[in-house]
Amino acid sequence: MLSAIELARDLEAGRTTVDRIFDACAEAIAEKEGIIRAFTALDLDAARLAAAEGRGPLAGLPFAVKDNIDTADLPTAYGSPIYAGHRPAADAAIVAQAKRLGAGIVGKTVTTEFAFFKPGPTRNPVKPSHTPGGSSSGSAAGIAAGFFALAIGTQTGGSVVRPAAFCGIAGFKPSYGILPPVGLKIFSWSLDTLGVFGKGVADAAFGAAALSGRDWRVDRQMPAAPHFALVRTHLWHEASGEMRVALENTARLAEKAGAKVSEVTLPAVFSDAFAAHQVIQDFEAALALGHEFDRRVAELSPILRETLAAGRAIEAADYDAARKTAAEAKLALKDLFQDFDAILTPSAPGTAPEGLGSTGSSIFNRVWTLMGVPAVNVPGVISAQGMPLGIQVVGARDEDHKALMAAKWLEEAIAKAD
Amino acid sequence: MLSAIELARDLEAGRTTVDRIFDACAEAIAEKEGIIRAFTALDLDAARLAAAEGRGPLAGLPFAVKDNIDTADLPTAYGSPIYAGHRPAADAAIVAQAKRLGAGIVGKTVTTEFAFFKPGPTRNPVKPSHTPGGSSSGSAAGIAAGFFALAIGTQTGGSVVRPAAFCGIAGFKPSYGILPPVGLKIFSWSLDTLGVFGKGVADAAFGAAALSGRDWRVDRQMPAAPHFALVRTHLWHEASGEMRVALENTARLAEKAGAKVSEVTLPAVFSDAFAAHQVIQDFEAALALGHEFDRRVAELSPILRETLAAGRAIEAADYDAARKTAAEAKLALKDLFQDFDAILTPSAPGTAPEGLGSTGSSIFNRVWTLMGVPAVNVPGVISAQGMPLGIQVVGARDEDHKALMAAKWLEEAIAKAD
Repeated sequence: MLSAIELARDLEAGRTTVDRIFDACAEAIAEKEGIIRAFTALDLDAARLAAAEGRGPLAGLPFAVKDNIDTADLPTAYGSPIYAGHRPAADAAIVAQAKRLGAGIVGKTVTTEFAFFKPGPTRNPVKPSHTPGGSSSGSAAGIAAGFFALAIGTQTGGSVVRPAAFCGIAGFKPSYGILPPVGLKIFSWSLDTLGVFGKGVADAAFGAAALSGRDWRVDRQMPAAPHFALVRTHLWHEASGEMRVALENTARLAEKAGAKVSEVTLPAVFSDAFAAHQVIQDFEAALALGHEFDRRVAELSPILRETLAAGRAIEAADYDAARKTAAEAKLALKDLFQDFDAILTPSAPGTAPEGLGSTGSSIFNRVWTLMGVPAVNVPGVISAQGMPLGIQVVGARDEDHKALMAAKWLEEAIAKAD
Repeated sequence: MLSAIELARDLEAGRTTVDRIFDACAEAIAEKEGIIRAFTALDLDAARLAAAEGRGPLAGLPFAVKDNIDTADLPTAYGSPIYAGHRPAADAAIVAQAKRLGAGIVGKTVTTEFAFFKPGPTRNPVKPSHTPGGSSSGSAAGIAAGFFALAIGTQTGGSVVRPAAFCGIAGFKPSYGILPPVGLKIFSWSLDTLGVFGKGVADAAFGAAALSGRDWRVDRQMPAAPHFALVRTHLWHEASGEMRVALENTARLAEKAGAKVSEVTLPAVFSDAFAAHQVIQDFEAALALGHEFDRRVAELSPILRETLAAGRAIEAADYDAARKTAAEAKLALKDLFQDFDAILTPSAPGTAPEGLGSTGSSIFNRVWTLMGVPAVNVPGVISAQGMPLGIQVVGARDEDHKALMAAKWLEEAIAKAD
């Protein structure tokens, strides 16, 4: 894997060159892309040139873009045959920003169909018989396979945190609305949030800091031991045995390493909010993909077709009630965060499921996306079968740096405990 | 002017036909479009056909779309030479929705450059030497000229309420996030809001009710006399003498007609929020139009170029502080609305300015857009020179029907007082 932050430091110190970095990418891609299939489009030469000419905090770095995000120089198909070969008129705002910061856009990465359920062909680099997770499948798998140093994806349910968990890398979904959602193929405008993938928490934070213009880096000071809330959620019974053990062990090792850990049971409004997430997502998706549903329905997958039909049947009053529930849960969460720094909770029900028929479940992510709060997958815990078990650190809204610091602290505590 | 609600009733009762409606549009366009120049694209034949085949609450109605909103069947240039002849791959969500509801999309209407400052060629039907307002210039002017019965636009500062005020029609900007912002050319993702134009308040409410799937119609029951808060704002000195008199007279006639009117002075956080609006707008615009600024800068107007450069110079910390100010003002406004039903305030500093060099000022609209609250231009007050003076009715967030009812009540009170 390529660490963005180490590459940036090595470039600055003259210990490496853009050509050597891109040679390493080319080698990894030549070796593994035939199996992994992370890309929908690839232009290493253009990326190498742009990265070499780049001036800015991401100069010289290979960077990949999920294919539900518009690029003017690379085809953008949104994971749907409807848009095969589509070339948007403009770069999405986040892509223009990455270019301006000096990154070289290596290619577009596989998304599920419109970033919803139907998987693409991507395999998990840890174990290719398993899903890499989704919907940002190619961005997460490509980081894990060493194809690029940074990648962006989007999260509507759990599409950043879950694939990061399954691939054993860091994934960071910032607070809603900070990274510009302009030029995404919107699925749900109240939920869709851009996120950043990197090898470790410091790498994802480094990329997100540059892209957001915020002071979000976590590699310049040693994070203090945080006060964690251990949150099992009302879906604890849906977590696998090894995930339950992993989270409890992580809480214990955090305590040993000096953190305070309090068990917190979320108030009932959060299980209501969990249900509200689906109402909001489906209602908005039916509107957002109205054109495709009305004019290209035969080219949609059955699962998407059913979801859009169900979304169209939701009454506006039920959608409005769901938005109200979400607003109440947000207030309750703000209050809860008075007492601790970050939440410790699973990133997914367990390790990456076998097979490519599903990208796994987002049940442990949805409510945090709805709350608009920062969420980080912390890598490092490995199952007995050698598969990553993702630990999720969730912060208070607009306290992204604090969340990242807590995640970085935990990542180090996990690494030291090994 | 064509009243959407009267046309819908007449169609239902068999008192008119789709052909007769579209003949009237064709006649008005043939007579006046040479002067008014509301359209960037026009396809009356396709619209007539679609409207005749339409099934739904907007069936048979001629409907126009501001040209910063994507249409798959009509060119979409966003008011910029960069996108001359551009044909989006999909209809915006709101366009797909309008078609599904039976409307016939007559054409695209003139927007200022990317819905910002630089005016298009549109003239005010009330007095063609004057601006129709902006940025939704063509949508407002086309309603006033009788070219179509309903139109949509967008508001980032005052781009729905102000042109409606200048053209003497109704303009309704619903609560933020209710109408789907998917397929708009985003200028500021925290502010951009779709709005609806019609001849009178009941027409705009009828269109918005259909498009939103909400029970927002105001023509089925007599609205009760509301409790208005008369809000002069800290910008009162910027209102023209005739606007000040108009607002005060309107408050008095509302009282005479049975409304309660209380003078309310907004807390200081609202003048801070007024300043925050520009910080948020410019910071986000610089990101949203990053592609155009980096790659097509020579094709941007000088004013937009300067604004984007200034936006790029805003520190993220100042943007975050502005968002915080906005959040505080929202809470304060929610509290204020405990005491009354709707705010009565100017829609614009005065009547439409002479000339086409500027579309006028949005200073009386910006803070309400930032608050995400519903805002309605109520037509009916006319200056000594025969120009419309818009009265703005502002409601509480997500209380759109209440705002529309208050606006409808006021519109009738003004009409009766004449």
